[in-house]
Amino acid sequence: MTKSFGSDNHAGAHEAVLRMLAAANAGDAHGYGDDPWTRRVSQDLCDRFGAAGAYFVFNGTGANVVGLSLLIRPYEAVVCAESAHLNTDECGAPERLLGSKLLTVATPDGKLTPDLVATRLAGLGDEHRAQPRAVCITQATELGTCYSLAELTALGEFCRAHDLRLYLDGARLANAAAYLGCSLADLAAPADVLSFGGTKNGAVAAEAVIVMNPDLTGAMPFQRKQLLQLGSKMRFFAAQFAGLLENDTWLANATQANLMAQRLSAGLRDIPGVTEQYPVESNAVFAGLDPRHIEPLQRQWGFYIWERNVVRLMTAFDTEPADVDAFLASIREVASSRV
Amino acid sequence: MTKSFGSDNHAGAHEAVLRMLAAANAGDAHGYGDDPWTRRVSQDLCDRFGAAGAYFVFNGTGANVVGLSLLIRPYEAVVCAESAHLNTDECGAPERLLGSKLLTVATPDGKLTPDLVATRLAGLGDEHRAQPRAVCITQATELGTCYSLAELTALGEFCRAHDLRLYLDGARLANAAAYLGCSLADLAAPADVLSFGGTKNGAVAAEAVIVMNPDLTGAMPFQRKQLLQLGSKMRFFAAQFAGLLENDTWLANATQANLMAQRLSAGLRDIPGVTEQYPVESNAVFAGLDPRHIEPLQRQWGFYIWERNVVRLMTAFDTEPADVDAFLASIREVASSRV
Amino acid sequence: MTKSFGSDNHAGAHEAVLRMLAAANAGDAHGYGDDPWTRRVSQDLCDRFGAAGAYFVFNGTGANVVGLSLLIRPYEAVVCAESAHLNTDECGAPERLLGSKLLTVATPDGKLTPDLVATRLAGLGDEHRAQPRAVCITQATELGTCYSLAELTALGEFCRAHDLRLYLDGARLANAAAYLGCSLADLAAPADVLSFGGTKNGAVAAEAVIVMNPDLTGAMPFQRKQLLQLGSKMRFFAAQFAGLLENDTWLANATQANLMAQRLSAGLRDIPGVTEQYPVESNAVFAGLDPRHIEPLQRQWGFYIWERNVVRLMTAFDTEPADVDAFLASIREVASSRV
Amino acid sequence: MTKSFGSDNHAGAHEAVLRMLAAANAGDAHGYGDDPWTRRVSQDLCDRFGAAGAYFVFNGTGANVVGLSLLIRPYEAVVCAESAHLNTDECGAPERLLGSKLLTVATPDGKLTPDLVATRLAGLGDEHRAQPRAVCITQATELGTCYSLAELTALGEFCRAHDLRLYLDGARLANAAAYLGCSLADLAAPADVLSFGGTKNGAVAAEAVIVMNPDLTGAMPFQRKQLLQLGSKMRFFAAQFAGLLENDTWLANATQANLMAQRLSAGLRDIPGVTEQYPVESNAVFAGLDPRHIEPLQRQWGFYIWERNVVRLMTAFDTEPADVDAFLASIREVASSRV
Repeated sequence: MTKSFGSDNHAGAHEAVLRMLAAANAGDAHGYGDDPWTRRVSQDLCDRFGAAGAYFVFNGTGANVVGLSLLIRPYEAVVCAESAHLNTDECGAPERLLGSKLLTVATPDGKLTPDLVATRLAGLGDEHRAQPRAVCITQATELGTCYSLAELTALGEFCRAHDLRLYLDGARLANAAAYLGCSLADLAAPADVLSFGGTKNGAVAAEAVIVMNPDLTGAMPFQRKQLLQLGSKMRFFAAQFAGLLENDTWLANATQANLMAQRLSAGLRDIPGVTEQYPVESNAVFAGLDPRHIEPLQRQWGFYIWERNVVRLMTAFDTEPADVDAFLASIREVASSRV
Repeated sequence: MTKSFGSDNHAGAHEAVLRMLAAANAGDAHGYGDDPWTRRVSQDLCDRFGAAGAYFVFNGTGANVVGLSLLIRPYEAVVCAESAHLNTDECGAPERLLGSKLLTVATPDGKLTPDLVATRLAGLGDEHRAQPRAVCITQATELGTCYSLAELTALGEFCRAHDLRLYLDGARLANAAAYLGCSLADLAAPADVLSFGGTKNGAVAAEAVIVMNPDLTGAMPFQRKQLLQLGSKMRFFAAQFAGLLENDTWLANATQANLMAQRLSAGLRDIPGVTEQYPVESNAVFAGLDPRHIEPLQRQWGFYIWERNVVRLMTAFDTEPADVDAFLASIREVASSRV
Repeated sequence: MTKSFGSDNHAGAHEAVLRMLAAANAGDAHGYGDDPWTRRVSQDLCDRFGAAGAYFVFNGTGANVVGLSLLIRPYEAVVCAESAHLNTDECGAPERLLGSKLLTVATPDGKLTPDLVATRLAGLGDEHRAQPRAVCITQATELGTCYSLAELTALGEFCRAHDLRLYLDGARLANAAAYLGCSLADLAAPADVLSFGGTKNGAVAAEAVIVMNPDLTGAMPFQRKQLLQLGSKMRFFAAQFAGLLENDTWLANATQANLMAQRLSAGLRDIPGVTEQYPVESNAVFAGLDPRHIEPLQRQWGFYIWERNVVRLMTAFDTEPADVDAFLASIREVASSRV
Repeated sequence: MTKSFGSDNHAGAHEAVLRMLAAANAGDAHGYGDDPWTRRVSQDLCDRFGAAGAYFVFNGTGANVVGLSLLIRPYEAVVCAESAHLNTDECGAPERLLGSKLLTVATPDGKLTPDLVATRLAGLGDEHRAQPRAVCITQATELGTCYSLAELTALGEFCRAHDLRLYLDGARLANAAAYLGCSLADLAAPADVLSFGGTKNGAVAAEAVIVMNPDLTGAMPFQRKQLLQLGSKMRFFAAQFAGLLENDTWLANATQANLMAQRLSAGLRDIPGVTEQYPVESNAVFAGLDPRHIEPLQRQWGFYIWERNVVRLMTAFDTEPADVDAFLASIREVASSRV
């Protein structure tokens, strides 16, 4: 199989992650997080984020639902972009498990702004309307774009001014940090709660929920357990993050993925008929192709059709320049052929 | 730290599990189970169980909730033992996530019988009562006992005769198979759905939901996803089971844990003042101790107080005779000392 | 207080409803629907609708949630218009109580079409997407328009062809029947389940859930009870419908309300600067007014601002020509004044 | 049909209730409680209870679920008696709609005590256990007994001392007030939230949720709406309570029902072979009968078999001495016949 551009979860695990799993396997340890690995790595995360608490969960949907469970009650709604993973790719988990409504907003680039959020606040105080209470943004977004620190700050201030809480879906937070060249603490500062994705960054399966607002940690153990996200041999989830945090491997991994997206994007720009849909600010490239070219390419390469003639091309921590170049060569070949 | 007798999840992972994680890490793979590892291992499980489908999830509570989600609607209730993990140790996850009531029954030994189930069926057809629809049993039970095949068959027949569905919580199914000397298919035959626990058997974190009744597989992908139990890099969950299934390591692991429980039980029988609470039929020993002996023992050894003067002692796949003997020596010493 | 044009629930109850409440008060009766009034009136409803069952509930949101509870499971979604009451005015009750996602569609006039529904079916079979399973339409719509019988038939056929179930929110079904001049059975035929609103038609508080598809009645008693919609002295809810059904008072009431909306609409057409937003096909008139005219009118008359310069004017079963004429006179006066 | 002793909801409505429904029918009124009737009657209730808020809902299960929704989150549990209506007769509505677990306690007489509540607090702080957070008591209980004011005070103090919240299911609160000869404010003082039942006291269908703790009113409008308990023509629910509150009709009604239960109880004491199961402290009599006598009695009289040879006999506001005496005569006749 050629390198997949289908998803960053088509990649395997980084060697540091597997190595740390083996290291964590020495001897017995208490379950459910009462162990030295969990204590050490969650403290490390708290230090890096300036957070009140860091908690490991199994997957990104789990992180989002657990994180939001700290912020809202069922009659309270979440404002999010129409393109948010929370809205499009979680099979209705937020609605079922939180009992809450999502108030979606169309966006040009996957990013909410205070003005866009404001369009969904009309029902505040009206008992017939689900009450907007949390704002959920994704960083980097599902469309590969990033909120700048100024944009994050503006959203944070807007939320505080309107008694809204800010949740940040950070399944690809590492890619945003790499793109923006800022610290995790900078990215997290405006949020009440966020997720920090390990899986797409090179873990086997591990995400962290980072609680910035110290008033919100009390319910976490119970919400995590009741929402099916408490692992018994917790040390192994901590260990995966230990592998990613060691030597800032998380940042190197994200940087590599982003660079490969840039390389891909640069190559596409030279191919006639290929259009770029969104700024490439993380590890995703959305490209418009001649529809007749898509099928021949799919025979050789893994990627998804986003809509009609637009394809999504994802790079991963282990994507190599040669992979990108070979893919570009295929695209060039198909694009130049008579169809 | 001395070997823990606190829980079988205090043990680490079996080397075959870590080895298979590494093996599964070669190259890219599609996400969410559309990969060769998942196909192969889930087929292997189907073959062993005679099942219609086998699906990997993250943890035991997740397996139970996903499994039961196939069987009931919110107005339908689950009959289970008061001591069932579902009732005592899942923080109300079944109630929240299924919307259903648990109808609990006191049991002498953690085991339901047709007669005990029958005591909770009075409300059938009465709209004011949650409707009994599923029966949940644990094999091996939370008290270390096992249902015999005859007992399982009788429950299965009772369920069919009363239009009830049978769910089997198999977090320690391997230990039951080892104790009873029967096949996984034998254990599963009377059930509509069951779980097969990997974590306590030597996995990092992996459970399987086994669907016996072919009419029930259609909803599985959606229930698993919506209930936060769908892993993206699924191959790594399949790989853990590959490690356990290879050379019947699962059975060797369970057999070892059971043998160590037997050794512990035999040793305890010779210590004056120690009483055995339940038959030792898997890897748990429940022992009555002089309450004054418990605290000194806890300073040296890890185990849990079940209630007042009864302690629960769990063995694991990696418990060694020397561990048991050293623990017994400590108990003997404490028991013989003046307190 | 002048006659309100704010909502058809600003009206009181029709005298026949109060009279029947008194009549139903003679002697004792079994609770929860096991009484002669309930049997008789629900049978009458079944006969009129050609239905498998008719069940009384308390309010419109209750009717919608109970009705849909028969059609979907939590991972299944409801396709509805953005303007649907289900989406805009139920405080997220469907999401919380059904656990399901609403897949909304923008419409020009509050009405779904097969083509509009088709736009939300892309995720069928994809476990990451809530599965479209029910289509919810409102008849008459929240914008005062009506589906023709041909439109209903087309939607019903589309649903059957795509394994979708059709739910009809009939809070103002009577107004649709009066407008279309057709029977309740005609309106209900394409639906699996629908509601038939009593409250806006002249009841104190009573709605009926009508189940057309006989396969769906089994769960009804339990869903209605568990969803808090089972009244103990049920005869009084049946009696309200008895009052409305007697001499086809329901139809006379709806006809009167519709006529008053037509009278209002006709009058508005002659006032310069007033625009009509939607065809007037039931008892609602949506009118564009000069924003400077709205506040002075609101000092004298009750009505709601729908958005910016558009107001919603509702008539009720007890709106009289004189009410409409006085209201029109006020509008004329305000519209002709310098502002 | 002879007077039913089956349930106090077999009675019709008190004339004052129907009269007030008619009175409330004059003219238009805003919906959803923004009307003079609702303002006046809810203020009257607040004054009588010393409450922060009073809110009308449709039925008793609705009142309980809405009331408890103000007190707990899904991982928090409700401690209640096994015999609580909440546990036995609400089809699992609390579990489904609140997502919470009920922690039940066996009681001799339907009444919780601090000691009994304490038995269910063991899991506090343990993430595997649903967290006890609310205590639900019924006054008068489902077994016809009443908590004394001293017992209520003790429970209230226990709850405050253990950071628990007290909910009181007052479906028959009027009967308790009549029995204890105390004010509604006295009964409510120890509670955070309670219900005040109108339906069994002579309403058509109306219950009030009374919020004592002023910190808890903010969520009420949204919880009531989302939980399907918000009536549009709210004045008619206020009017029903207006009828019951006028001239303290509620108290006269309850007193009459209680007196008739006393009369029934006194008469039963003289019949050989009949045993009284619980003290008669409200409008319920639980009597042990020779099982052979039950069927012949059921041919003539309406009542329910509670369990084996115990029957529940309920009186209502409109039960007359002649009804009781005729029923007693029948029992005497059957009891004296050879069977």
